Amino acid sequence: MRVEVINTGTEILLGNVVNSHLTFLAQQLFPLGLRIGRQVTVPDGDDIRAALGEAMARAEIVFVTGGLGPTTDDITREITAEMLGLDLELDRAVLKSIEERFARRNAVVTERVQRQAQVPRGARVLPNEHGTAPGLYLQTGSSAHLFLLPGPPRELEPMFFASVLPFLKQIVPERADLDMRTWRITGMGESNVEAEVGADLLAIDGLELGYCARPGEVDLRCIGAPAALELADQIVRSKLPSHISSDTGEPLEEVVIHRLAALGKTLAVAESCTGGFVAHRLTDVPGASAVFREGFVTYANEAKQRALRIEHELISNHGAVSHEVAVAMAENARSISGTDFALATTGIAGPGGGTENKPVGTVYIALAVRDTKSIVERHTFATDRETFKVLTSQAALDLLRRALVTSAAG
Amino acid sequence: MRVEVINTGTEILLGNVVNSHLTFLAQQLFPLGLRIGRQVTVPDGDDIRAALGEAMARAEIVFVTGGLGPTTDDITREITAEMLGLDLELDRAVLKSIEERFARRNAVVTERVQRQAQVPRGARVLPNEHGTAPGLYLQTGSSAHLFLLPGPPRELEPMFFASVLPFLKQIVPERADLDMRTWRITGMGESNVEAEVGADLLAIDGLELGYCARPGEVDLRCIGAPAALELADQIVRSKLPSHISSDTGEPLEEVVIHRLAALGKTLAVAESCTGGFVAHRLTDVPGASAVFREGFVTYANEAKQRALRIEHELISNHGAVSHEVAVAMAENARSISGTDFALATTGIAGPGGGTENKPVGTVYIALAVRDTKSIVERHTFATDRETFKVLTSQAALDLLRRALVTSAAG
Repeated sequence: MRVEVINTGTEILLGNVVNSHLTFLAQQLFPLGLRIGRQVTVPDGDDIRAALGEAMARAEIVFVTGGLGPTTDDITREITAEMLGLDLELDRAVLKSIEERFARRNAVVTERVQRQAQVPRGARVLPNEHGTAPGLYLQTGSSAHLFLLPGPPRELEPMFFASVLPFLKQIVPERADLDMRTWRITGMGESNVEAEVGADLLAIDGLELGYCARPGEVDLRCIGAPAALELADQIVRSKLPSHISSDTGEPLEEVVIHRLAALGKTLAVAESCTGGFVAHRLTDVPGASAVFREGFVTYANEAKQRALRIEHELISNHGAVSHEVAVAMAENARSISGTDFALATTGIAGPGGGTENKPVGTVYIALAVRDTKSIVERHTFATDRETFKVLTSQAALDLLRRALVTSAAG
Repeated sequence: MRVEVINTGTEILLGNVVNSHLTFLAQQLFPLGLRIGRQVTVPDGDDIRAALGEAMARAEIVFVTGGLGPTTDDITREITAEMLGLDLELDRAVLKSIEERFARRNAVVTERVQRQAQVPRGARVLPNEHGTAPGLYLQTGSSAHLFLLPGPPRELEPMFFASVLPFLKQIVPERADLDMRTWRITGMGESNVEAEVGADLLAIDGLELGYCARPGEVDLRCIGAPAALELADQIVRSKLPSHISSDTGEPLEEVVIHRLAALGKTLAVAESCTGGFVAHRLTDVPGASAVFREGFVTYANEAKQRALRIEHELISNHGAVSHEVAVAMAENARSISGTDFALATTGIAGPGGGTENKPVGTVYIALAVRDTKSIVERHTFATDRETFKVLTSQAALDLLRRALVTSAAG
């Protein structure tokens, strides 16, 4: 079945916003055997009309994003209803949920906001758990299956999983006996992953292979028959034994929190260069409070000395970015907070602060473990400030993950 | 003049790569008075034919990216020559530069690689300083101006500045005197922003209006003549005086850090429910270390009592999520770290932990200021855990921003 995507949004065509919907939809549709044949971006307003007409003439499934909101430039709903010859009707249930949402925020439901409760006759409402405008699913006669989805990714993405995916599974014919398996690989670059396993995997009959690299991790994706995937799994596990953080798509912070929770262990973090990002990632995981007790974001040296009881001499002798200070931060964070484990990061995020021996990007990462010797790693992540924080947090969480695998095995 | 962009690349439609060309081109074209009317992504291969025919029928200027390389699926050059009825001819100068490039890398120039030196008769070559495939500029008879550009951003972007921009400046008529202005609005939803200023702005002759909402902020964008934008600016500033966080696109954390740095003031944060996210945002700003000294991520109550010296009775009497505990967290963080300001957050991120009086989403945000009374706000952000953290951090940073505006004005 041919799929097309229409993204509406003047801000995309002005370069104010990057279109993340295409990537998201493509990645979600792939496992269903669906590929996007064409994608179009049109400005807010009447241009959607022509794009929708063309897409519906070519494709069996059409996704439209954006233009469902309350403002005057949001006219996707109206134009679609007009093109399909459907009247708009007030949906009481949608209106009620908008009113409840606004009541919780003590906000007034204006006439404009109420427009979002207008639904083309016969359309199915896709509830929006994270905003006011619901999505809509329409299919009339022999026309294409049409999904109208809200523009904000935080609304679209949960709606896709909750409401779009179940519909798609009814629409899309049972695909040939193909399955997909994704291994999330940490601590190796994309080309090294390919060098280790690429040739062996390509030798498996009927296996389709893909790589998706993000900062600090690579998803290795295989599509094929179950037997071929079993073979692939054996190869990946034997070649990259300590590098597979997940085969379920779980992010690294979830892997670590769930593992610690299962072991009944607790964690603290002491952060300098990551500035709270490691704590932030850990506390994104529901239930983190059973494991994560405390973060020390000791950006200033004075804070390292006071809050983490690092001796002034240690910093003046070795520098705040050093093996010795990283270990002391981890060990003191662990003992002060009384946890089983503590991670520490200290490095030079840049753009300033580098020296010849410790250039911008240098970072020390330490792990303190109750009743065991601490572990330290030095890395150099010469990149921009934000990517530096991502790479450092990945390396820190992965250091803990590997320690937990070892301790569970030992 | 109407501009359209065609991006070719199967990897974009598979979601393996984000299309960064659109953002780049849009931002470069805007100052010339050019706006992209439509953008299309097609897979590698023959699909470019239909897209190119449609775009050339509608637009005066067409950019095509990708498909100029050496592999079999790179056929942009061939299809374009065929559609315009032009023969391909070997360009000796291009071939020489490819051969020199390969010689430097001790690589062999294969027949496939040589294909990149084929140039449609009459086309102008746009040299590629960072790769082998040159760009091409074509214009025949009354057809659109057509730019074929290489797919890799590190080749396309320097080529744009060196070769495309000079051509465009000859092609594009003296621009109509249009400019763009964007106000970033905090503390209000999109529909409330429109209710406040939408009608007045739409009444300004020749002004184009757009809204882009993100969690906790709305960008209000106007395009028009300078005089119209001045009028718009007066309306926005008089109607939303305390809600404009920026008119330069600066994120809120940058606004706050830059303002504090200019005042020579320092900041600490004490976070419970945001779990390090406020510290993370602040430390994303280059130069944050001059302002931000320390973060206390006191997730466990024991950590609140020890690290922030919150009395056990205060927590047992009022609850950790309370006006009183938020104030104590902010005031103690400020006095312990010795900073001028401190922000504190304590709330229920969910999914668990809500009560009747304090449902999931309840949050108290406090700001302590040296020698001044603390300020506290209560909000209810009933949403998912990650959005809760974003909204809470926005409200906290905005509380500080507003206090800084007041203190500077007072």
